[in-house]
Order: sequence, then structure tokens, then C-alpha cells
Amino acid sequence: MHLRTMPPAGKVALAYSGGLDSTLCIRLLQEYYEAKEVILVLVDIGQGEADLAAAARTVESLDARLVTVDARNEFTNEWVARAIAANGRYGDYPLSSSMTRQLIASKVAAIAVQEGCDAVAEGSTGKGNDQFRFHNTFTYLAPGLRVLAPIRDFNLSRADERRLAQSYRLPFHQGISDDKTSWGRALGSGEIDDLGLQVPSNEFLWWVPPEQASDHPSTHQVEFLEGIPVRMDWAQGLESIIASLNETGGGNGIGRVDVIEDGIMGLKSREVYEAPAATILLDLHGDLERLCLTKEELRFKQMVDSRWSDLVYHGGWFHPLRLDLDAFVAQSQKVVSGTIVFQVYKGNVAILERRSPLGLFDPAVRSLEHDSFDQSEMKGAVEAHAFEYAMLRDRNRRRASQRPRTSRSS
Amino acid sequence: MHLRTMPPAGKVALAYSGGLDSTLCIRLLQEYYEAKEVILVLVDIGQGEADLAAAARTVESLDARLVTVDARNEFTNEWVARAIAANGRYGDYPLSSSMTRQLIASKVAAIAVQEGCDAVAEGSTGKGNDQFRFHNTFTYLAPGLRVLAPIRDFNLSRADERRLAQSYRLPFHQGISDDKTSWGRALGSGEIDDLGLQVPSNEFLWWVPPEQASDHPSTHQVEFLEGIPVRMDWAQGLESIIASLNETGGGNGIGRVDVIEDGIMGLKSREVYEAPAATILLDLHGDLERLCLTKEELRFKQMVDSRWSDLVYHGGWFHPLRLDLDAFVAQSQKVVSGTIVFQVYKGNVAILERRSPLGLFDPAVRSLEHDSFDQSEMKGAVEAHAFEYAMLRDRNRRRASQRPRTSRSS
Amino acid sequence: MHLRTMPPAGKVALAYSGGLDSTLCIRLLQEYYEAKEVILVLVDIGQGEADLAAAARTVESLDARLVTVDARNEFTNEWVARAIAANGRYGDYPLSSSMTRQLIASKVAAIAVQEGCDAVAEGSTGKGNDQFRFHNTFTYLAPGLRVLAPIRDFNLSRADERRLAQSYRLPFHQGISDDKTSWGRALGSGEIDDLGLQVPSNEFLWWVPPEQASDHPSTHQVEFLEGIPVRMDWAQGLESIIASLNETGGGNGIGRVDVIEDGIMGLKSREVYEAPAATILLDLHGDLERLCLTKEELRFKQMVDSRWSDLVYHGGWFHPLRLDLDAFVAQSQKVVSGTIVFQVYKGNVAILERRSPLGLFDPAVRSLEHDSFDQSEMKGAVEAHAFEYAMLRDRNRRRASQRPRTSRSS
Amino acid sequence: MHLRTMPPAGKVALAYSGGLDSTLCIRLLQEYYEAKEVILVLVDIGQGEADLAAAARTVESLDARLVTVDARNEFTNEWVARAIAANGRYGDYPLSSSMTRQLIASKVAAIAVQEGCDAVAEGSTGKGNDQFRFHNTFTYLAPGLRVLAPIRDFNLSRADERRLAQSYRLPFHQGISDDKTSWGRALGSGEIDDLGLQVPSNEFLWWVPPEQASDHPSTHQVEFLEGIPVRMDWAQGLESIIASLNETGGGNGIGRVDVIEDGIMGLKSREVYEAPAATILLDLHGDLERLCLTKEELRFKQMVDSRWSDLVYHGGWFHPLRLDLDAFVAQSQKVVSGTIVFQVYKGNVAILERRSPLGLFDPAVRSLEHDSFDQSEMKGAVEAHAFEYAMLRDRNRRRASQRPRTSRSS
Repeated sequence: MHLRTMPPAGKVALAYSGGLDSTLCIRLLQEYYEAKEVILVLVDIGQGEADLAAAARTVESLDARLVTVDARNEFTNEWVARAIAANGRYGDYPLSSSMTRQLIASKVAAIAVQEGCDAVAEGSTGKGNDQFRFHNTFTYLAPGLRVLAPIRDFNLSRADERRLAQSYRLPFHQGISDDKTSWGRALGSGEIDDLGLQVPSNEFLWWVPPEQASDHPSTHQVEFLEGIPVRMDWAQGLESIIASLNETGGGNGIGRVDVIEDGIMGLKSREVYEAPAATILLDLHGDLERLCLTKEELRFKQMVDSRWSDLVYHGGWFHPLRLDLDAFVAQSQKVVSGTIVFQVYKGNVAILERRSPLGLFDPAVRSLEHDSFDQSEMKGAVEAHAFEYAMLRDRNRRRASQRPRTSRSS
Repeated sequence: MHLRTMPPAGKVALAYSGGLDSTLCIRLLQEYYEAKEVILVLVDIGQGEADLAAAARTVESLDARLVTVDARNEFTNEWVARAIAANGRYGDYPLSSSMTRQLIASKVAAIAVQEGCDAVAEGSTGKGNDQFRFHNTFTYLAPGLRVLAPIRDFNLSRADERRLAQSYRLPFHQGISDDKTSWGRALGSGEIDDLGLQVPSNEFLWWVPPEQASDHPSTHQVEFLEGIPVRMDWAQGLESIIASLNETGGGNGIGRVDVIEDGIMGLKSREVYEAPAATILLDLHGDLERLCLTKEELRFKQMVDSRWSDLVYHGGWFHPLRLDLDAFVAQSQKVVSGTIVFQVYKGNVAILERRSPLGLFDPAVRSLEHDSFDQSEMKGAVEAHAFEYAMLRDRNRRRASQRPRTSRSS
Repeated sequence: MHLRTMPPAGKVALAYSGGLDSTLCIRLLQEYYEAKEVILVLVDIGQGEADLAAAARTVESLDARLVTVDARNEFTNEWVARAIAANGRYGDYPLSSSMTRQLIASKVAAIAVQEGCDAVAEGSTGKGNDQFRFHNTFTYLAPGLRVLAPIRDFNLSRADERRLAQSYRLPFHQGISDDKTSWGRALGSGEIDDLGLQVPSNEFLWWVPPEQASDHPSTHQVEFLEGIPVRMDWAQGLESIIASLNETGGGNGIGRVDVIEDGIMGLKSREVYEAPAATILLDLHGDLERLCLTKEELRFKQMVDSRWSDLVYHGGWFHPLRLDLDAFVAQSQKVVSGTIVFQVYKGNVAILERRSPLGLFDPAVRSLEHDSFDQSEMKGAVEAHAFEYAMLRDRNRRRASQRPRTSRSS
Repeated sequence: MHLRTMPPAGKVALAYSGGLDSTLCIRLLQEYYEAKEVILVLVDIGQGEADLAAAARTVESLDARLVTVDARNEFTNEWVARAIAANGRYGDYPLSSSMTRQLIASKVAAIAVQEGCDAVAEGSTGKGNDQFRFHNTFTYLAPGLRVLAPIRDFNLSRADERRLAQSYRLPFHQGISDDKTSWGRALGSGEIDDLGLQVPSNEFLWWVPPEQASDHPSTHQVEFLEGIPVRMDWAQGLESIIASLNETGGGNGIGRVDVIEDGIMGLKSREVYEAPAATILLDLHGDLERLCLTKEELRFKQMVDSRWSDLVYHGGWFHPLRLDLDAFVAQSQKVVSGTIVFQVYKGNVAILERRSPLGLFDPAVRSLEHDSFDQSEMKGAVEAHAFEYAMLRDRNRRRASQRPRTSRSS
């Protein structure tokens, strides 16, 4: 910990979540950066009314103006929808707070510019990925403003933070995590550094262990239009589909992810997430793509998707490459429309039916092929496919006879 | 169907499985190709004693010499082991008969060369992938020999085949499928062209539906040495691990795969597989890799693995690129050693513990970092990471001011 | 050669170039396919007035209707412009007739559909790539029509063709090659199968050997707007830039390409091309991209471009993946605007100056950085970059001490 | 500039080149880091006798022990040979000092460990790539030692450095550049930030402008064995081939490279290199590969090569991924043997002949194909290739009829 007076920060817009880190930053900005004014930007990305209300109560006494931005619709339709189309997974983790950090930073930057702030601030530590995501976005969208990260720059450990919060008598609410979004939650840290321990099941919000899930399978269907889920059973629109699937999927034991993850700096951490809706929708979307996209598109899109997730994870939402990749994805999705019927049961998502007017698996065409297609004409295709092997075989023969001359190691 | 007399085939080595296709080929070779001698090559790739015995009985009266080749050890240790190291999946399908077709063809070719045959033959139809796998391998390993595929070249439909089998009074045994290997089975065809129907659960050999699986989770551990499973609970060696996991995994509802697959000719088909051991071992191996390989290796190996599976699926086991890719894979696996403890329960494989002396997640190093690592030094890394965004922001400003001059579309 | 009567073809639209192959097809269609009517579709893709006129004269006596389609503008602005943006090279070969074959096929298909033809036809042999390019396009754009390729299907050798042309007294003009487009020419075949021989310099249309080129360098500049050349010196528009650069570049010894090429069937051939304008414009465009695109875009676009060229070479212009890739390319090109000044001299293209309002190399920003950037702050970035190496070093130590336990080969 | 006393460094091994940066570091280590002993490690990587002697004279009076390490053989045979096999280019730049920085660091680390040093040091500024290359290597090979970079950590500008050198009366020799290796030289910096200026031709060591090069082409041949050049005309061994080609190539106007390059931190710089031997050998090697490797190997190796160059450029020589990639490369090179005859003339490298006993272009096989290959059998291959287009065409029809229902935007 090296608290010290810093150059005066003037008017500051702070990314505020209600959690320990960002609440503490208010006081640090006021005391050590001599902030003239601190504007708290609280962004609603689906963390729920309770969390938002608690966050608002927390700062009542802290002499800082709270601005709440409702970004739920933007998050769902501009960010999550693209993540679904691009099969946005980093390893097995469906990208969630990797995105919201950048969305939040963009809102803070916008308000900072609009309010004529001198600086933007956020509460990341220096050990994680979020500092990069905030900093990239601030640099891009709040040109010329100082970027402050007090927790990191004062090198505060979690113990330091708790001590300071106590001394400041911060009305801090234990339960608020800043890693919750409508698209998934990140859990734990600390104890799960022991690779033999599990996160207790009561720390999950939606997910119940398969052993405790319902004994009766339940069947649902999701309709996609150009890569985006538009309807599920009776729910309309992506936002309510997600809400519904977090309940249904989590309750049926689906959506716990436990992975070894490579952070931005190249160090591995163990991460546990719960993301029932994301798990199911990404599975269904991938399945529908296999029905509607060509073999060559699927193969190349795998690289596009992987690069997309990598870029977004690394704080590159506003990077031009993301736009380039999304142009590819959007074009490819024009035919990814159809309905998937599936069953959830104790951790399993079983696909029961696939229907698409634009699928490339067409029983009619296939049976037509069965009747009229003369198999013997494939002989030429098969032989042509093997031409290269004839060349290789001949080379092997030449190689065998010339090995003494051409081999480096006898 | 266009049966007709073909140029005489002389002495022929036929890939023989005991199934309808290859059994019928014996008679067709004798009658329409005037084969002087037909050597039946039956390769044991783990299909089980019963199938092998039935295959042998089937041909007792058919005037053809049966040669049985035990390739189980080679299949497990030279083919499956490499497939595990390369995470050999084509889409979601763990490659199995894609490999054995080529292994079988290599044995047929070797015997054909050794016995001085004039031709090699196999029973593929002209609608699938196997004709390519056989033909490539024959071309490469049986240089100069004719390659015969009577079912395809006579354009026989399945109904034609059944009629011919009857007229030849072939002692054909219904149960024998030539799509079974120790590493997985392919199921069904025909009825599953209806994307709304399921393969009945009684057609599976190992797999039971989660609903009918045991109500009690069971816990196991697999030890990997340099990428290869070497021990599981009390089982030693890859072959017995696989056998054990097919039972355990299948019995716990694991290993059913139902996919839309892009065949070699670019047409989609629906395929259903059961592969309990493969599903579990590929999952565990991938997880261990995430612990032991660097971020950059994992990212690039994803492309290597994907290319490996694609190549092998397309009949390229003997292609030089496979050797190049395997050289990469083998080098990478030198540190993929350790033990994964996992639980199986009603279709779920849950990893309970990861242990590796060579892992790159090291709590000791991390806690060391926790103590001595000064977070504030990350400021430079974060700012450097954002340099590019400062450039981009400045360009945007220039671009905005010059848009009238440089944009094509106003 | 197996000439024989084929099922009657009805009304046929034939891709006609004036060369031996397609001229001969007219007679073959009339005689062996009993074509009721043959519509010759001659597509102008920049092969020049003389060639077009000669082609028209050739068929005056052949009882077939000639329809000429001027596709020059479409070729330049819809095909070549995209090829420039995607750095369209297959190996070192700037894609040219790989594209025009598909463009021609699309015109033939359109006319066939419009005229109510029963079949489309083209003059490819069975040894090259063009049969695939025509067939894909016909299949896609002329649904339900028969596709005829008489030269291939009658297995005519070049000697057979010459003999038949003579017996038909075809007024065949030696000089017409069907491998010329405004974007490049393919030369030779046959004699260049000897890898030690060169195509004589008098067979080139634009290119002169560096030894015979001007002794005086000449300097030019090309302006790009969003990835497309729009002006060169006094020439306006892509079409006249290309015409001008074929003269200037060729005359200065630029644009001969001599490569070993992997054909669609996987067999290697040696190909010699001349493409002065393409060589220069692709070089300049690539250089400008390195100035205007981010590092990460350049890296990924390399794969996109490579896939684009591969796909187009393999006859996939109308494949949906081409549209997906082009969406990526088009998005990326929005900032690829600027001017390159260069010198041509005896085979060399030397870039003298790069100017772009949207470049990411900005001396102003850099000098700003020179002043205010505190180098010592890079320490953190450098150390963070090496974190992984610290982990690896520690593992090596553990590995050394545990080698006896974990190594497979001692 | 913020010179200040640093924690005492003890015994230090310094990477020493004789240039301004590293010479100044000696005094800074002695004065500000209170180094007890400074061991200068001067590594011979082919910079030439004159430079080495000048470097030695420079430090005669500086109270530091000089250790010279001859790494020429290792550089040529372990580093450059691998770079040739992997077509080691970053953009258009043949990797040279990107490699030697890491080779030098490895020697410094080895001596530091052996001599029981407390720290390693090097003279990079904080603006370039070398600080990463040194730091990664030091971290990996000199575990536990402090890493000092005084120029960067004191934030010295070049002007600062000159002033300090003067005040220390450093016997500094102007001509010594630390960017010269046998495999290439980096030139200039500063003035070439003006993208309209050229590096004067007298600053090149080997290269002369084409205009001033010989008027007579000269012809040579290089023999490769398993990817490595082993003989050229009368020269034996890679080291003398390189020396010879730097003279011959440079004298004929070959080997100047002028590029916009993306540095490790993502900022662009303009770089000018001269690398005649590298330019020629990489061209020839690539050409021979196109003759000897399969289409599929060439395609994938492009990605392997690109990743290799990227990794090495970014200071990853000792990263495990480099070993993985090299395993792929080494396996692929087993058949890359043969001879290329080429002509150099005023900046042009023209390939005159390609000969390889292991090539996959074989006139004999081709002519065999010419005779016996029945073209009409390709019909099946062509039709099979177009199956996908039939599916796509049918989908388009369905899509057209259903557009109102499935499109998002009307």
C-alpha cells in the first residue's frame, strides 16, 4: 500500500458498481486526488433492481452525484446479440463481464466528455483483466482525459481495502458483486485457487447441481432469425428469452463453467462462471449454424469466431478489427434462421428437432439424389481425390532409391 | 443397378467386415469380375469377438480365404493415442471409423502386395466418405493395383443389395455393423433423415439415456503421461482405460453425439454416434492441456488440431501433412502430464480436481505474486496496451474532419 | 477420342471465345448432340477489339447466333476492384482468368435462362481448372439445365482437336488465346513443362525483359480511395489506370510471373503469367494497407485474403463464403485511402513516398510521444510481457527434478 | 532524464556491442547502480572483425572485463537455418536482429549464471522492441537475477545520451551500429520518419541501387538439402553461401527493404533494412517448397511460418510454441531438397531452373497422364465439386419464396 497525494484530479467521472472497489475509490479520489467533483456512473447491465438500489443507498452520504444509465437494451441487442452470432466463447467461458466492462467504460467516457470532466476513474486492481478493458475504452472514447485507477496505483491488497473501508465507515453492502450481468455471472476467487476445491452450490444464483435438479425433463423451443434468438416458447425478444433460460436452464443443472483461463497478461487463473442462458443459446445457435451454413463457411467462421472472442476478451470491442469481423459474421447470419426444439434435464441439453427453411440438409433433395444419382459416376471424383497420393507414392519410390544422396542424417 | 461383366480382376484382396456390403462383394467379384482368387482381409479393430466370429462363419461356404489381422494394439497406440493428443474431433464427432477405414485399407494393401494380388477391393457405396478413405490409402500403399468398389460401380441401392444377397443365399448376419470400433460406434441411417426423430435408445450398445442412468454419481481419475492416458483407477494402459470408460461412461448417460455433419463431398448428413470413452477422454485431455500449455500454444494448437481432424476425416492419414501436424502435436505434449479427477452422473462429466507437476497454474507462484508484486507497476503495461487506441482515436478525429474528401459514400 | 452421338441437347448457350476449343464445340454440338440451336455468348472482358473481331469473323459461316456481352465495366469494378481490396493472389499469381471464367459462365447462364435454353456448354478439357469454374457457376445460375463439356466428354487431345478442326475446315485464327483479360494473361503450356526452359520473351504482350527495358526510371503516383485505385498521374478510374500500368509496367520489365502452381485437383503445374498492372497495384495496395490498418487487422486479413484467393481460384465466386469474406474486406478498406508515389525501372517497383490522411503512422503523434512519453514507464509493460517466461522457467526447474517420473522416453 | 542512485547492483553482466547505448551503460552501472563489477559480454554474430576490434578498443579504459563469445556458427546453423526453413519474414523483413538480440541475451545470461552475477543489464531504450526480447530471454535463462535497462529506466533521450557520453569522455566510435548481423542490417531511424525521404545509398553496406549495378546478369545455383542451403556455385556451407550472396546480391541491387512495420507495442514505425542474402535465399527456398511440398502442406505451413516469424519477432525464441512450430517445420523439410538456378540483374532475382529428385511436379507422370488419362472420367469429379452449388441454388429458391417471413429488414 502506498497511499500518497497525487496531482489534483479536478472533476472526475467514476465507473461505479456499488462494490467495495469502486465505493472506496470515491473516498480515495476525494482525499488523495483532491477531486473537485466525483460523478458516479452506475450502469444497469441487468444486475437487477436489488443491486442497483443497494448501490444507490451506499453512496447517499458520500458527497458524490450518482448518474444511472440504463444500458440493458443496448447490452442485449448490440452486444449479446453479436456475441451469440459470433459464438462468443473464450475457451468454454461465454463472454459476459469482458463485454460489460467496456460497455460501462463507454458510458462513463460519454458522461465525462459531456460533463466536461478532467478525468475518468475506475476501481480495477492491477492483477486482472479489467484494467485493460477500461483503459482501452477510456483512451478511445475520452480523449485527453486522465485515467485513474486508484486501487491499482496505490497497490491496495484486498485486506488494505477492507481496512480502509472500515476507517472510512463506508456503508458497504456485502452482497453486491460487480461481476453479474444478465448474460452470466463470475463467481468466487481466492479459495478456488485450490484446484481440488469446488465453489459451494449455494453461491450460485441460478444453477443447482444436477443431483438436486428436477427429475422430469422439460422441452422447449427457440426460434432464431438471422442468427438471433427471437422467440422461446411464449417469450418474445432476446431479453426475456435470456431471463427465462437463466431460470429454466439453471434450475435444470445447466450453465456451470469451471475452467483454467489464460488472462490478458498470459497468467493462468481458475474461473468459475454460471451462465445457463448463454450456455444453452450458444449451443443451439452453433447447432443451427451447422444446418444452415456451408462446410467452408463453418470452417472459416470458426477462426473468425475465435478471433472475435479473443479480441473482445482482451478489451478490443472498439478496435476496428471487431467491426471487420462483425461484418463477416453479419453477412454469414443472413441464412441462420430456424427453430431448435430441445430438452433440458439434469445438466443435459438434448436437441430433439431442428427446423429451418434455409437449411442445407434437405431430405427432399437427398431422396431425389437417392433415386436419380448414379453412384458409379463418383468413381471419377474418388480417383481425382487420390491423384495426389499417386504422386506421393511415386516420390516415395524415388526417395527410397536416392536416400543416400539426399538425406542429412544417414 | 447396372450389373455387367467387368475386365477380369485376377487375384483380389478384399476388405471384409462381415457386413452386407463386403459379403456381397465376394460374390460380385467372383461372378462379374471373374476373380481367380478372393482373399478376405478381416481386421480386428476392437469390434469384439462375437462380431469377428460371426464374420468368419458367414464366409465359410463362400470359397474365399479369410485372413484375420489383429490391429487392436496398433489402432489404440498408434491411431487413437494420436487422436487424443490432437483432440481429434470433426465438429463434435470423435473420429473413429474415419480412422479405421484407413487402417483397414492399409492392412488390405499390405496383404495384397505381399500375396501378389492384382487388385484390391472394398464395399463402399458411392454416397459416402469411405470410398475416399479406402481409395487414398490403396493408391498410396498398393501402387499399381486396380481398385475395385463393386457396390458403387454397379450403382447398387440398398434394396438391390438385399435382393442380390437373397438370390445368392448369403448367410448374412443382421447384427453385424461395420461401423463399430473400440473408440466409438456410428449408428442408424435412413430414418434419422427426419430431423425430428431420435435413434431409439435400445440401438445403443453402451449408452443409456440419462433418465435411466444410475442415481448415484461415481468418481474416477485418469492419469495422463505426455498427452496419453496411462492409468484410470485400477486400469492400466490405454486399451483397458477405453474399455472401462465405454462401460462406465455409457452407463452414466455419457457419449451420445447427434450432429449435422459435412461430408467429404460437401453434402450434409445427420449422424448419430456413441462414444463414451472418447467423449470423456477428449474432455479430460483438453482440460489438462489448458493447465499445462501456454496461452499461445493453446491458441495455435486449436488450428493444428482442427486441421488434423479435418485431414484424417477426409482420408488423409497417410498424407505428409498429417506427419507434419503430428510433429507439432508430439512436441507440445511433452508437458501434458498429470491427473484429472472427475465425476460422472446422468450425462455429466464434472471435473473435481486437476493435478500436474508441469502445470502453469501454480498457487505458490501466484501467492508469491500476491505478496511481492507491486500492482502499480502494471500501469505501464496497461497504458502500452492502449497506445493503439490513442492512435485510432486521433485518426478518427482526422477522419471526421476529412470525411468529405475521402469517403466514397457520403 | 470417343466421339459418339449423345442425347439431343435442344437449344444450347455456349461460352464462346473464338479459340480452338470453343469454336470446335459449335460443330460438335451440332453434329453429336444434335443441337437445335447454338447461341454463342462472347463476353468482352478486356481481351481487345482485335480478338473480339476475329472471334466474330470466325463464326460467320457456322450457323450459330453470336451474342456479345460487354462485361468490361463489371469485370473491372465488381471483380477486379474486389480482388485488389482482398490482395487477390493465389501463390504469386494475381487472379485473372480464374475470375473471368466464372464471370463468363454467369453471362452464359443468364442468356440461357432468358432465351429458354435446354443446356449450357463450354470448351474446357478434363485436365484443368476451368471445368470446375464453369460447372459451379452453371449449376448455381442455370438451374435445371444440362451442362455440356464436349472436349472433355469426348476425351479429345489437342492433336484430336486440330485434326477435327481441319476436317471441319474451321476458319480458326491461330492468334486468339482465351486466357487474356485486362487484368493479366496466362502464357504457354506444353514446352514449359521442362522446368529448365523459359517462355520466349516475344510471346509476352506487355512485358519486356529488364535487360531490354528503358534505362531511365520513371516516377508515378496512384491514389487509392477505400482500397480502390481511383487516379494515376493523369488517368482517372480503375479501367484506365490498369490499361496505363500494363503499358508502363510491362515496358519497364515488370509483371512476369513464373510459378509452380497447385491446381484444383491437387496436381502441380508450371504456369507463366504476365500481369504488369496487377503486380504493381497489388504491391501498392498492400503497402498502403500496412500504413492504414492496425497490426491485428493486417494479421487476420492475411488469412481472409488467402482464403478469398483460394476460394475464387477454386471456382467459388458465387459461394456464400465469398460474400462473407468480402464483407470483412469492405469494412476494413474504409480507411485504406491515400497516395503512393513509386518508381519503375527495369523490373523494380520502388516506393518513394506514402501519404495518407488516415494512416496510423503519424510523425506528429510520434514526436509528441518523443517529448512527453516517459520511457521508464515501459518497465511494467516489459516485465508483464515476461511473466509467462517466469512461469516457464519455474516449470523447467520442476520438470528437471521430476523428469524420471514424468518422461516417457528416458 | 531522471538520473538517480539505484539500489546497488552487485556484480553485473552487460550485453555489450560497442555502440553508444551499451558503452554508456558501463558508466551508468558503475556510478548510479554502484556495480561492484561489470562483465561486458560481446557476442560475435557476424558483425565483422572491424566492429569487434573497435568495440574492444572502446572499453580499454573503462574498468570492465570484456568477454567475447563467438556465436557465428550457432547463429548460422541453429538460428538462421531454422529461419530459412520457416521462411522467417515479419511482413517483408527477413528476421535478423530480432533473433540476435535473443541469442546475445542467452549468452549474457549463461555467463551471468556461470560467473555468479547478481544482475544482467542491457542498453535498450524504452521505445523499441529490443527491451522485450532481452527481458524475456533474461527472465527465462537467468532466473532470480535483476534485469537492468539503464537507458530506459533513466528515460534518456538520444541527446541526453550524447551529452553524458561527452561528459564521461567515452571513446565512442561513430561507425559502430549494433544492428548488423551476417543475415541482415537495419538502417537509419530518425530522418526516415519522413515517409517521403529515402535512406541515402551510401549508408548501405552491400546494396547498390539497380541503376548503378552491373549491366550484365550473372547466373548462380544454390543446392538445398532438407530445406537448408548447402552449396552455392563453389561455396560450401551456409555461412559462406550467405557471405557470398550478400556481396553478389547487394552488388546487383538486391536486398533493400523499406517497410511500415508494426512494433511489439502496436505502434507503426518505418524501417529500412538491407539483406541481400536473406532476400535471395528466402525466395529460392519458398520456390523449392512449392515444388516439393503438397498443396495442403503449403497452405497450412503459411500459417505456421507466419506464426513463427511473429513469435520470434516478439521475443519468443525460447517460448515452447517455437519448439512446437519448429517440429512441424523440420518434419515438412525432409523432402525440400534440390537445386535452383537463378539470375541476378539490377534488383531482379529470376529463377531459371528448378531441379529436385523429390519434387511433386513430374513431367513423366504428367505425360503418362496425358496419354492414358481419360478426361471424360473427370465429369464425376466436376459434378461432385458442384453438389454444394445445387444445394445453394435450391435454398435460394426457397429463400426467395419465404423472404417475407424470415428477413429482419424488409
